[in-house]
Parts: sequence; structure tokens; C-alpha cells
Amino acid sequence: MTERFELVEKALLAMLEEKKYATLRDILATMNPSDIAGLFLGLEEKQIPLMFRLLPKELAAQTFVEMEPDAQELLIRGFSDNELKEVLDELYVDDAADIVEEMPANVVKRILKHADPEMRSSINQILRYPEYSAGSIMTTEYVSLRPTMTVEEAILRIRRQGIDKETIYTCYVTAQDRRLLGIVTVKDLLLAEDDETIIEDIMLSSNLICVTTQTDQEEVARMFSKYNFLALPVVDGEYRMVGIVTFDDAMDVMEEEATEDMELMGAMTPSEKPYLKSTPADLFKNRFPWLTLLMVSSTFTGLIITAFEDALAAQVALTAFIPMLMGTGGNSGSQASVTVIRSLSLGELKLRDLFTVLWKELRTAILCGTALAAVCFAKIWLIDHLLMGNEDITLMVDLVVCLALLVTVIIAKAVGCCLPMIAKALGTDPAVMASPFITTIVDAVSLLVYFLFAQMLLKL
Amino acid sequence: MTERFELVEKALLAMLEEKKYATLRDILATMNPSDIAGLFLGLEEKQIPLMFRLLPKELAAQTFVEMEPDAQELLIRGFSDNELKEVLDELYVDDAADIVEEMPANVVKRILKHADPEMRSSINQILRYPEYSAGSIMTTEYVSLRPTMTVEEAILRIRRQGIDKETIYTCYVTAQDRRLLGIVTVKDLLLAEDDETIIEDIMLSSNLICVTTQTDQEEVARMFSKYNFLALPVVDGEYRMVGIVTFDDAMDVMEEEATEDMELMGAMTPSEKPYLKSTPADLFKNRFPWLTLLMVSSTFTGLIITAFEDALAAQVALTAFIPMLMGTGGNSGSQASVTVIRSLSLGELKLRDLFTVLWKELRTAILCGTALAAVCFAKIWLIDHLLMGNEDITLMVDLVVCLALLVTVIIAKAVGCCLPMIAKALGTDPAVMASPFITTIVDAVSLLVYFLFAQMLLKL
Repeated sequence: MTERFELVEKALLAMLEEKKYATLRDILATMNPSDIAGLFLGLEEKQIPLMFRLLPKELAAQTFVEMEPDAQELLIRGFSDNELKEVLDELYVDDAADIVEEMPANVVKRILKHADPEMRSSINQILRYPEYSAGSIMTTEYVSLRPTMTVEEAILRIRRQGIDKETIYTCYVTAQDRRLLGIVTVKDLLLAEDDETIIEDIMLSSNLICVTTQTDQEEVARMFSKYNFLALPVVDGEYRMVGIVTFDDAMDVMEEEATEDMELMGAMTPSEKPYLKSTPADLFKNRFPWLTLLMVSSTFTGLIITAFEDALAAQVALTAFIPMLMGTGGNSGSQASVTVIRSLSLGELKLRDLFTVLWKELRTAILCGTALAAVCFAKIWLIDHLLMGNEDITLMVDLVVCLALLVTVIIAKAVGCCLPMIAKALGTDPAVMASPFITTIVDAVSLLVYFLFAQMLLKL
Repeated sequence: MTERFELVEKALLAMLEEKKYATLRDILATMNPSDIAGLFLGLEEKQIPLMFRLLPKELAAQTFVEMEPDAQELLIRGFSDNELKEVLDELYVDDAADIVEEMPANVVKRILKHADPEMRSSINQILRYPEYSAGSIMTTEYVSLRPTMTVEEAILRIRRQGIDKETIYTCYVTAQDRRLLGIVTVKDLLLAEDDETIIEDIMLSSNLICVTTQTDQEEVARMFSKYNFLALPVVDGEYRMVGIVTFDDAMDVMEEEATEDMELMGAMTPSEKPYLKSTPADLFKNRFPWLTLLMVSSTFTGLIITAFEDALAAQVALTAFIPMLMGTGGNSGSQASVTVIRSLSLGELKLRDLFTVLWKELRTAILCGTALAAVCFAKIWLIDHLLMGNEDITLMVDLVVCLALLVTVIIAKAVGCCLPMIAKALGTDPAVMASPFITTIVDAVSLLVYFLFAQMLLKL
């Protein structure tokens, strides 16, 4: 599939070079907007407007939506007023609002100047809602019906209004004051037995699932994946319809939120820029502050080692097990934290489950810790002591390492599952409390435990 | 929102206890299947069939689909043959196939016995496709049209057939031999100007986007998020329609795949069981092998320390910086690996980009490494040497630590970005090559670099 596209892509770019515009235009007209937008990635700056002008009007607008912000900006700057107006007229308002958000101020001014008054006010409305809210991702274009309409009238209205709407399949029944009364789908309308049936009689009117303009987009995405809706109505504080969120936007949010969680888990500031578009300076900006913070935090671990310097000098064999202890502790902790972070963000886990989680993790930790300690004990004795003949590693040293390992695993799991939940309770993103932070904390704790056991059992 | 649900939930469960069945039935009838399924989670085993029988037939089947496998099994075992048949008749085949996959053999036998012959053969067909393929998540129920039909005939056909189909909004135009000729949406049909228009004239017939039964489900989900389709046609090797994948299944796949990647990144065997349903033994099984593997791998790091024992004994101050070096190296590496893994799984990055990625990461590493080394140098000199008065930490020791830090960051970024791509090239899941493995490798490398610099510059 992908390879086929690459071949087609090359052929099309060659046509552009050879100025076979007529053929190119015919082929482009049959293609999907997303794929055409992909083609633009391979073009030089001056070729972009050239190829864009080969697209038929509607397809041009659809392709425009799928393009990268820098190419969009380039095009808008090059458009005549007329061209700009033509593209804007074809856009859905939520897409237009997305584009406006990415553009510099002077381009935004030009866009708003050439949008028709209705679209301008819709864009302004959407832009007013907080970032990451349902209001900021909704579209204000939807089909609204009245409860007193018949099925026939409703279908007629869809036919008249539908051409401009992003989705026509779910229609919203509203009162005069735009209060949401019910939902009716085109499937309901088509399958209604009688054209004279009144909408009020077939609409779904109780337990309507809707969100407010202020609902967090992550919550919106969760509702889509729970209820499998095509679209979700967005209401204001008075339960009046203001817009809808469609499933494709919810999918984008799901993807974005998962990416964001992973980036936080990897100790980076989340960025919406695709990797291949990010410069080393961008990456540096997202990564350096976290690395510094974690580096400075690990100073504590260094302090612990310094404090026990004499013990280490007396039993040099102990140093060799430090990486294994810290590593296993870190891994145990991040297993617990990753599981909890993901369950929290999928909504499977609530804050009130804290003790259930802690109890589950403690039992798991005892199982893992005991088994690991047993494996470790045998390995140290058989390989390090007998096979490699390291006489410094006595049975007592082996015992110290394995006891420290067991306790470290238990503490690591407890820290790993609690910290993300505490972060959530404090209103921070739980994903921040993933491997890197857990590891830094567990490193210090595991060393402390290790040296205390060493002091006690080896009398250092 | 969630809190409101919890209140409703409690009230409903109280009604069940108090045997107010009539009221309960009326309320349940207005609720959404997903929410009703949520209610069943709070019930005792013997209450489950009781409440289930309060649901109207169609709602009962929709709720059944959303329930947990153990509750489904319990219900099926308790159903009379008649009840089982009624529920099965209301299910969409892809949902039925999902349920069958989760049940023990004797329950499956009973389900297949009571499904009508058409559904039985569809279920069997879906179950034959490899797990995680488009075939295994598709449904065989879709609306098919003929190219010679008029718009009016097409709408009539949808009205007659639509009741049983999961989606009616995208219809597939096929030839006599089921070859896919084109796609037409209900929007196209409703907005067609003339009822006598022939389907062939309005259908989309070129560059049809479709997948085969063997296409990986991750690829299917990626296509949904790229093209924003409601449904995607699934064809066999001869381009004949065999089914469709709907957007809600694609959403589930997206969520599953992201969870799977995160679990692999956290060094766990991915599991489909929700966290709260997993026993400590389940968690142990998914986590212990990875912990053991990583523990044993970190032996190499221990060996390196043992090899340089004498150097450490001569310069005890060096030991204190080991955790900081290993930690920063690990974090730098996992930043790179997380970014690359996510970009690979979103399809933003291809294997052929390996050198672009490596070059970008190397430049980023030099930026991060230099800045970190500078911060570290100042911190060690000002705090550890001057403020804490640690005389062991000479300017030369400080230099060794910071040089080792710079080189470690560079190696870590290179390893972090290359390993996931190599894993992908070898056909393994790139997510395996995340923090835990990267950290283990980088730990060993960073110590080696550290000790080599120490030997060279401190003449140990």
C-alpha cells in the first residue's frame, strides 16, 4: 500500500517538473485530499502554489485543511483576495478555526477579513474557548430540527441544509431558544415506517449524552470511545446547543493525548510538531530542562554514596551491585507507574481506588521481589562466587544484596503506583510521575536500604 | 458528569435490592447501553441475570455487547435456549465474533448452535482470520448497491436492509461477483438533485481506499485517523468485498495499540485485562520475566565496576557520580527512543529515515550534552568542592565527570534512536526498545566511558 503510494508520488512529481499540467490535474482530481496533502511535502516552496492551483475548488479546500501549517501560510500569503475567499468558503468552521490558531497575526487578520460574516463570528467564538476544551474542537455547523416536524420535513431540511454541514447523520432537535430536546439519526429517519411520523415521537430524548463547552477534550475523547458516537452535542450552561464534536476530531485528540502521555513519560515537554519537522533546537528545548532537573535530583543519590564512602571502601564488592539494584528498582517502579498512568487516562481507574491499587501492587511486589531475590541469590553465589571465584562475595554479602533487592522492589512498586495518583489528585498530569522521576526517587531509596542492610549485617 | 452517574448508579442498585422492578425497568429503558453495562460491574453474581431480564430485548443485546466477558459467560450459561437465541439475533456479527473469542469452548459450541445459519457462517469466517488482522475486526454486514440502481432504488434498499446493519451511511457498490466498484454515502444520496440519478454516476470509483483481510489492524487504525472515514471496505485478494471495519472498532484498536506500546515501554508483557480486573498473579506473570531479564543484563555493568575496582578504591570520590551519570544517560536515551517509537507507530517515520533521525539526534545530543556538562561542571565545583568542602573532588575529577557525561549523552541518544528502528526493520515491535533496554545498555557504556576517561586523565 505505502509502496504503491510512493511510486505514484514520484510519477506525479515528475509530471509537475515536466509541466504536464493537464494530465496531472486529471489524476489529482481522482485522489484523496490526505494523499494530495502528502504530495505537497515533497515539493519545493515555489512549486506549492503551482500545484495547488491545479486542484478543483472543493478538493483544493479539503486538501488545504490536511496540509502542514507552513505550507498553508505560504499559500495564504500568495493567494489573491479572491482565491482566499474561495478556499475559505469551502472550509468547515472548525477546520478554519484550527488553521487560524496556527497562523501569525497578520495572516489571521487577512483570513478573518475575507471570511463571510457568519464564519468570522463562528471562528471567533471557537477561538474564545480555552485550549483543550470541547469548545475549542467543536464545529458550530450541525443540522438542527424542530420537535414538531414530520420525518418528511426533516429529510427535506437535511437535503437543503446538509451540503455545508460536516455531518448530517446525527441531527439535533432543539426548542426555539436552542435548548437541546433530543437526538434523531438519519438512520431513524430513513427507517421510520411513515413519512408523517412526528420527530418528537422518534427522537431520543432521555439521558442525552452531551458535554459542555468547558469539558476537557480528553474527557470528550473518552466518551467517544465509550459510547461509539458519530458526534457529540456541545451545550452551554443553559443546556442550549452551541456545536458538535465529530468522531474524527475525537480520534485526533485520542492520538494526541496518548502521544503527550508518552512524551511526558519519556521526560520531555510535549510538542505538537511532528518529529521530522522538529529542529535539534526544538528538541533541545523540550528535553534539556528535564534532563537538568533529573540530573540535579540525582545529586541526592550521590550524597548517599558519599555518606557511606567508608563502608564501600571496606567492602569494595558492594559497589558492583549498585547498578543492578538501582536498575531493578527503577524498572519495578516504572512498571507500576505506567500501568496506573494509562488506566487513569483511559478512565478505568479513579482516585478513590488508591487503596485497592496500593494493595494490589504490594502483593505483586512481594511476588516479584521474592522471586527476583531468589534468582539473584542463586546467580550471585553460583556465578560470581563459585564460577568467577570472587572471594570478596561472601554468603553475607549475597544476603545483603538480595534483602535490599526485595525491599527495593516493594518500595518501588508502592512509589510507582502512588505518585501518579497523587499527581492526579493535585491536578497535575499523572504522566509526569513516570519512569524518570520514579527512577530518581527509587535510586536514592534503594541505595539507602542497601547501605543500611550492609551496615547491620556486615557490621561496617 | 461522573459524579452524577455514581449517584444514579447507587439509586438504581438500591431499587434492585428493594425489588422495585417496575420502576427500575422504566429507568433502565431510557439509559445508554454502555452505562447499563457499567451498572452490572457493581452487582453480585446472582443479581446479574435478574437485572438483565428487566431490559427490553434490543437494549439487552446492546448492553450484553458492552459487558465484561465473565458477566457475559455467566449470563449465557444461565440463558434458556430461547433467551440465547433472542440475544444472538440482535447482535451484529463482529460483536458476536468478539464475544465468541472470549468464551470457553463449551459456551462457544452453545452459541454457534443457536445462532442462525448466516450468522454462524459469518462468525466462523471472522474467526478464521489471524488475530490483529482487518479480517478479525471487520463485520460482514454492510449495505451493498448495484451500479445500475437509481438513487430512489438505493434509498429503498437501505430502508429495507438497513435495520440489521451496523452502519448504513456508507454503501458499497459491487458487481455481480462482489468486486468493489465504488462507494456512495447516504449524504450523496440525500443531496442528489434527482431521484432518477444512476448510482454509477455519483459513486466515488477511483482511488478507492480499502484494506485486505490480512492488513494489520494497526495499519487499519492509522488509515482511519488519516482519512477520517466512517467505515473502510475490506476486500480479498480478488478485490471482492468481504466486509467493513467501522470507526468505533478502529478507535478501540488505536487505544489498544497505544496501551500496548506503553506497556512494552514500561517493560511489561501487554495484557488486555483491565488493571482493576488483574490479580497480583496476572501482574506478576507480565512483569517478572522482564525484570529478571533486565536484572541479569545489568550484570555486565557490575562486571565493569569490578574490573575497575582498583581505580575506584584509589579515587573513592568517583563512585558518588555513578548514579548521576547512569541516570542522565538513561534519560537521554529514553527521550530519543520514546520519540522515535511513537513517530514510527503513528506512521510519521519510515525506516528509510534512519540517517535523518540519527543526524538530528546527534546534533540534539551535542546541544544537550554540552549544556548539561557545563551545568554539571559548575555545580560540582561550586557545590561539591567549594560549598561542601570535598577536597577529593579536584578540577581533574570534575573534568572527567563532565567529559564522560557529554560522551554518554551522545552515545545514549544514538542508541536510543537507532535501536527502535532496527527492531522495526527486524519485524519486532519497536516499543520493546524503550527506556528499560536502552537504560541497561547505556548504563554499561556510560561506566566504561567514565572509567576510561578516569584512567587517562587521572592516571589511575
